Amino acid sequence: MARLWEKGEAVDAKVHRFTVGNDPQIDLHILRWDIIGSLAQARMLAKVGLISEDESKNLVAALGELLIKADRGEVHIPDDLEDCHTTIESLLIEVVGEAGKKIHTGRSRNDQVLLAMRLYLREQVASGLAALHAFADQTSERAEELFDQPMPGYTHYQRAMPTSVGVWLHAFAEAALHLLREGFAVYEMIDCSPLGAASGFGVPLPLDRAYVAELLGFRAVQRNPIYVQSSRGRHELLVLRWMLDVNCLLEKLACDLVLFSTEEFGFVSIPPEFTTGSSIMPQKHNPDVLELLRARASRQRGAVAELEAVIAKLPSHYHRDYQYTKEPVMRGTTNFLECLDVATEVVARLGISPERIKAAMSPELFATYDAYRRVLAGETFRDAYKATAEAVKKGEINVTELESDLNIILTSAREELSDCRAELATVREQIGNLILHLTEVERRLLGGS
Amino acid sequence: MARLWEKGEAVDAKVHRFTVGNDPQIDLHILRWDIIGSLAQARMLAKVGLISEDESKNLVAALGELLIKADRGEVHIPDDLEDCHTTIESLLIEVVGEAGKKIHTGRSRNDQVLLAMRLYLREQVASGLAALHAFADQTSERAEELFDQPMPGYTHYQRAMPTSVGVWLHAFAEAALHLLREGFAVYEMIDCSPLGAASGFGVPLPLDRAYVAELLGFRAVQRNPIYVQSSRGRHELLVLRWMLDVNCLLEKLACDLVLFSTEEFGFVSIPPEFTTGSSIMPQKHNPDVLELLRARASRQRGAVAELEAVIAKLPSHYHRDYQYTKEPVMRGTTNFLECLDVATEVVARLGISPERIKAAMSPELFATYDAYRRVLAGETFRDAYKATAEAVKKGEINVTELESDLNIILTSAREELSDCRAELATVREQIGNLILHLTEVERRLLGGS
Amino acid sequence: MARLWEKGEAVDAKVHRFTVGNDPQIDLHILRWDIIGSLAQARMLAKVGLISEDESKNLVAALGELLIKADRGEVHIPDDLEDCHTTIESLLIEVVGEAGKKIHTGRSRNDQVLLAMRLYLREQVASGLAALHAFADQTSERAEELFDQPMPGYTHYQRAMPTSVGVWLHAFAEAALHLLREGFAVYEMIDCSPLGAASGFGVPLPLDRAYVAELLGFRAVQRNPIYVQSSRGRHELLVLRWMLDVNCLLEKLACDLVLFSTEEFGFVSIPPEFTTGSSIMPQKHNPDVLELLRARASRQRGAVAELEAVIAKLPSHYHRDYQYTKEPVMRGTTNFLECLDVATEVVARLGISPERIKAAMSPELFATYDAYRRVLAGETFRDAYKATAEAVKKGEINVTELESDLNIILTSAREELSDCRAELATVREQIGNLILHLTEVERRLLGGS
Amino acid sequence: MARLWEKGEAVDAKVHRFTVGNDPQIDLHILRWDIIGSLAQARMLAKVGLISEDESKNLVAALGELLIKADRGEVHIPDDLEDCHTTIESLLIEVVGEAGKKIHTGRSRNDQVLLAMRLYLREQVASGLAALHAFADQTSERAEELFDQPMPGYTHYQRAMPTSVGVWLHAFAEAALHLLREGFAVYEMIDCSPLGAASGFGVPLPLDRAYVAELLGFRAVQRNPIYVQSSRGRHELLVLRWMLDVNCLLEKLACDLVLFSTEEFGFVSIPPEFTTGSSIMPQKHNPDVLELLRARASRQRGAVAELEAVIAKLPSHYHRDYQYTKEPVMRGTTNFLECLDVATEVVARLGISPERIKAAMSPELFATYDAYRRVLAGETFRDAYKATAEAVKKGEINVTELESDLNIILTSAREELSDCRAELATVREQIGNLILHLTEVERRLLGGS
Repeated sequence: MARLWEKGEAVDAKVHRFTVGNDPQIDLHILRWDIIGSLAQARMLAKVGLISEDESKNLVAALGELLIKADRGEVHIPDDLEDCHTTIESLLIEVVGEAGKKIHTGRSRNDQVLLAMRLYLREQVASGLAALHAFADQTSERAEELFDQPMPGYTHYQRAMPTSVGVWLHAFAEAALHLLREGFAVYEMIDCSPLGAASGFGVPLPLDRAYVAELLGFRAVQRNPIYVQSSRGRHELLVLRWMLDVNCLLEKLACDLVLFSTEEFGFVSIPPEFTTGSSIMPQKHNPDVLELLRARASRQRGAVAELEAVIAKLPSHYHRDYQYTKEPVMRGTTNFLECLDVATEVVARLGISPERIKAAMSPELFATYDAYRRVLAGETFRDAYKATAEAVKKGEINVTELESDLNIILTSAREELSDCRAELATVREQIGNLILHLTEVERRLLGGS
Repeated sequence: MARLWEKGEAVDAKVHRFTVGNDPQIDLHILRWDIIGSLAQARMLAKVGLISEDESKNLVAALGELLIKADRGEVHIPDDLEDCHTTIESLLIEVVGEAGKKIHTGRSRNDQVLLAMRLYLREQVASGLAALHAFADQTSERAEELFDQPMPGYTHYQRAMPTSVGVWLHAFAEAALHLLREGFAVYEMIDCSPLGAASGFGVPLPLDRAYVAELLGFRAVQRNPIYVQSSRGRHELLVLRWMLDVNCLLEKLACDLVLFSTEEFGFVSIPPEFTTGSSIMPQKHNPDVLELLRARASRQRGAVAELEAVIAKLPSHYHRDYQYTKEPVMRGTTNFLECLDVATEVVARLGISPERIKAAMSPELFATYDAYRRVLAGETFRDAYKATAEAVKKGEINVTELESDLNIILTSAREELSDCRAELATVREQIGNLILHLTEVERRLLGGS
Repeated sequence: MARLWEKGEAVDAKVHRFTVGNDPQIDLHILRWDIIGSLAQARMLAKVGLISEDESKNLVAALGELLIKADRGEVHIPDDLEDCHTTIESLLIEVVGEAGKKIHTGRSRNDQVLLAMRLYLREQVASGLAALHAFADQTSERAEELFDQPMPGYTHYQRAMPTSVGVWLHAFAEAALHLLREGFAVYEMIDCSPLGAASGFGVPLPLDRAYVAELLGFRAVQRNPIYVQSSRGRHELLVLRWMLDVNCLLEKLACDLVLFSTEEFGFVSIPPEFTTGSSIMPQKHNPDVLELLRARASRQRGAVAELEAVIAKLPSHYHRDYQYTKEPVMRGTTNFLECLDVATEVVARLGISPERIKAAMSPELFATYDAYRRVLAGETFRDAYKATAEAVKKGEINVTELESDLNIILTSAREELSDCRAELATVREQIGNLILHLTEVERRLLGGS
Repeated sequence: MARLWEKGEAVDAKVHRFTVGNDPQIDLHILRWDIIGSLAQARMLAKVGLISEDESKNLVAALGELLIKADRGEVHIPDDLEDCHTTIESLLIEVVGEAGKKIHTGRSRNDQVLLAMRLYLREQVASGLAALHAFADQTSERAEELFDQPMPGYTHYQRAMPTSVGVWLHAFAEAALHLLREGFAVYEMIDCSPLGAASGFGVPLPLDRAYVAELLGFRAVQRNPIYVQSSRGRHELLVLRWMLDVNCLLEKLACDLVLFSTEEFGFVSIPPEFTTGSSIMPQKHNPDVLELLRARASRQRGAVAELEAVIAKLPSHYHRDYQYTKEPVMRGTTNFLECLDVATEVVARLGISPERIKAAMSPELFATYDAYRRVLAGETFRDAYKATAEAVKKGEINVTELESDLNIILTSAREELSDCRAELATVREQIGNLILHLTEVERRLLGGS
């Protein structure tokens, strides 16, 4: 079988290469999800009587076999079949004959790819949540370990007030917790079934869209076929932006660590396995992993920018432009998971240099504590501020006395970390349930019809 | 009183202009929110004993007066006071004397501006939800009115399958409903109180951050002071991106309408009040409002790009760069509300040309219906597809017979619209509650302490 | 031989995969240019006495062999050798022994990759100029052919004034001519040799940078080693932006053609080999190639955005982030050439439908001509405008009489096209000389030392 | 007189506000250029006989008066006249009566605004070149002054090899020189006259486009009216991108200085007039000017992104979207000049701390020098590299001996700086000529016709 829309006209090879592009490679990422979608479609077609129970059984069995092959990397998308949808239909026809020619009933490639992408995104967000939780967990663990280690706090790259290594690391865990919640919200936004919209105008067949959605474990059906098609790229964008936000957090961590690991700061040490050398300077140990972690966020920015540009300024309905929504998504999801994985390792193995940090705890850091002592002694803050400014100029900040005020701050900060850890434990459970749900959906789809 | 940090050094006028920039204008947007934040701060300082009940009462009264003035546009930010925070503190000292010098106790301008922006964003999202609901409501109403008017459906700008004007309009209502849900999720993400983080390292004072959050009607306290500061711009980004998504929906509507109102399509007519003429061509009635609606989405893209770039690649903690997160936010929020307002008017007054639409309902639109008739008669879809393709070539598509199949689709589509309308009613109630909550918060803050 | 900087420490496989990434694939694009650069380096090292004449001869011969293999696709970059630079050095040592260990003298991978990229970019711009010229030539040729075919001119998607198919096509040739000039300016900006900057601080060896530049046919040496390193990504950006500008022109062409090939406009016909069908709608012939051409500009936007983000906010000197400047460049250059090639074919085979165009030449198009007749008869333009507006309302525009005024415009327009064609001929010659120069450089480098 | 296209229909106030937007404010930037354009138009209309010599004289005189008023800020654009073009035409009619109604002959607001923007851009590039030259000059001067002050060179934020303060500063001068050349190329690209394209289709009048171009001092006429209109925003983009590139250079300088002025590095000191304090921390002197300089580049990114998005995916010809190309240009040009000005001041007043720099010149910086000594003694570089790596580990790098090798590098670096200074002098002259040319054009336009 040739391309689904083949009608006998000659198609120039160059145009073929231009229109197909790297779809055969890219579609390998969604092959399994197109099979999963087809499993639900086969069961639904039987339920509403558009195919027989026997046809459905044969299709389900053949698709089950295909899924195993696909997961083993044994399904190849031939260049002349263009994409995963045509390939799977073609393989089905080979195995089950006439019934295979019925699997496309009530579908268009347009809603098939929407469904496959939706399933793919759902799985990527679930995996992403798990990986992000691991990062948050690791970071909060190290924060606990290093909670009482004082450290200068900076604003404008200038020493500002005292803080602790633990408080600094906790900031990343807290940000990750925020992003975990954002991730759940994104999951909920994309958790709806597009199948049945066909090419954007529905079909005059008694399809059961709700049943398909239920089989695939979606929260709801995405209503209105035109809206379904016009939303192409938009669910992808919600996911990619979330991933970008995570990458931006890792970027910030990398910026901190690159700075703190300079010879001049020397607060942290990057384990040798995360550094590389120079081809010309024999002495170098460069924090390449951190720099790449930083640069990877920009790679993610590129993916988001590309996706946003591709879907911009298009009227309603399907346009071929949407084919190019897939590549930035695949680049983005891969980039995201690799970075989270490496960042978690970096946090786990990070070394701290207490003596270098201590040397940086200079008196001016305590100026604000001095002002607040004056406030507690009855001065207005504005007057206290001026008095302290004078004291700083004269070198009269008494650090030894003020140092203990950091403990006041650390005491409540420790409670905050503890609350954060508790919430992370709850989130872990929620992620577990999500993944269980997705596994269950797949198990049921593959079971006897 | 001069700048909060003034220590007597001369500051070159040029540098002053460069660093202050247009803050005095921009801060007018958050003036009232800084006052609201200060009201909560004054009450909390009294609760924990850092100021007396009397001082608190005086401050609350003075702030209440200031709020009235601010809302009347009577508070001006003098260029030498730089921003709204310094201005308000200065005005308070004028009115209540020493107590005014205490209002900054436990705060930094860094967390003050975070709070003012958070309150501003919360209010903008709430107003935005209301405006977006109005758009969705109007669109779904017109969709109901025009539900049965058949219209060609397009893919690739080419005629594809039959649909109706109502289904097309419903698509926008459905998309808006999705965006309303997204908006609520954004609201929830930003609904937490930053106050108490000070410059990012807390203060050694017994502040009651939870009480401030409660007074201001926040769902929670944003924990960890470093995270609070590092999140600068990120809540803004969540809001702006949501607004951009809404603008992109209006852009799509504008793209459709510009196309449908060409002489060649002629499906819709834009009321004269939405068109303008040409300085050279006397006959012109151009759909300028639609084109500007389209271009406004790109203005929003610019605001998002600017915000994202400003906060990129900064290490933890506060940097002065964050000052420039405000301007794109103000540009974006204003743009967003103006566009929603105009778009709702456009939808309300849109004219339809049934005869032009009818003329465009050419036979090939019904080809897919023909194929599905064959499927229902027992052919496999793949064989039916080929048979219909032949029929199309021979001009043998029997439109009269097939036309009624559109009704099958419209019947279930009408149910979808009805479900959409029902959900919109529920959402209206939720928005009402939200706005009630915000009003209530303000009322209580201004009431007797 | 292992990695150039290998000092015996174990490097975790995951980190290796993260840091190396897809460099082995990407570097295949610059393999040949690294060899070319090494040829110049070998000759220069002999000239200044850092290696012997014999060593140089052996290196040149071995590099010549390697170049042939590389051009045949026979050089593979093993994953453990990371990049093309290490691979080539390693292969040289295999062939010529000790002399191979000297090829890195005075170089760093940092300036080696800068040189290889500079050579690659120079060649891509030259090829791009040739491809862009072909597009401009084809477009201006078709413009000549269709010059007198009247066509409605549009503004705001609304009929505005008469023009001709030829004038419309000429606009693209003229824009392409502008972009050809821009391309030459870009070529000139990047035409300087970075080699000798080493890791950004020079080396205490008597290298002859000017000789290397001369051997490689560069206009000049890029001075100051810190600047050389800090310019990483910036020459790439100049090239990619130029390519984006070309893609934007093709995007505009695609937008025009998608619109003009709708059933409603019907001005042009896209040959069947540029259209594809639908998997569900048997009647469809979609202008996929045009839509992809449009979407490809957004792919280019993504590449530019990625590159800009990667190099943003980095202090002076080399950072590992720069590794990620390569991928968007490779994506961008490939995309650019493919698009130009296809677009030229589209223009060559484009069909025109004179009768559909004629039907669209409605009277109001001539309103401005009417106003100018009144101006020539003595009215002020502002009064003439109002009189014509009245005439339009009353349907009193006399088309038959006014039609001939288009010829006044076409007469001078034809001269403009002729001037454009003449300039294109000159540009063709300049491109020819450029390519001759590059060929000559390579021939000389490979010749006897 | 009301809006140029007013035909008596009521225009809803809201729509008016939406369509006019902030044009009355924005157009103040191009008011004078629209007058300059009108001066050329009046002279040309007389030359070709479309108005009388007397009418031309009156118009020229009235426009001359208007220019003086405009330059004094005395011309106001009333909100109901929408833009500068209508305002000027209206004022002309007031002063010279009927002749004023003829000034629009052969023009459309579309090509009027193109011309005004082209003149505005030309002037902005010329001023920008002068400001950029001042920066380059100042930077190279300070480079000369501090040439021999050794400083550690960094790669990956890690100490790499020795360099000097002068070499580091020279890098910025060199980059600026490159950008000066880029600026001249941009000037050349935009130096062509759009007038006469009218609304994109020419006019059937004997206009003399070449004469207008000559009067305005343009290098050439921009041919083909459709191309002229389609190029809207593209000349703007060339200019804004160039300005962004300059802002990115200043961003890099700011990144360096923020880092070098930390307590930990301490290489440079920022004069107090460039720092500001904190509202909470009495001891702070923050490098706010540098941080804002850094953030301003992102503001520029926003302007470029907005402009690119506004003009994307539009078919040929004029669309109202183009109105929004003006605002990002005005934001961008203002931002650019302010930053250059401040950055030049920063460089002029920058303080250096030789003792802190000296303390950072640690032995490992000299490792590469050690390797090259071995190379000069006959070892292959690859073997020398390994031997030095061993020496580093054993702490056997003899700094005292190697220090002098920096002089070898500085000797040739000094020549490079000297060449750079010489080229800057030539460039200064070119800029002078450019500005002279522009002044001359204006003088002649205002002279007796």
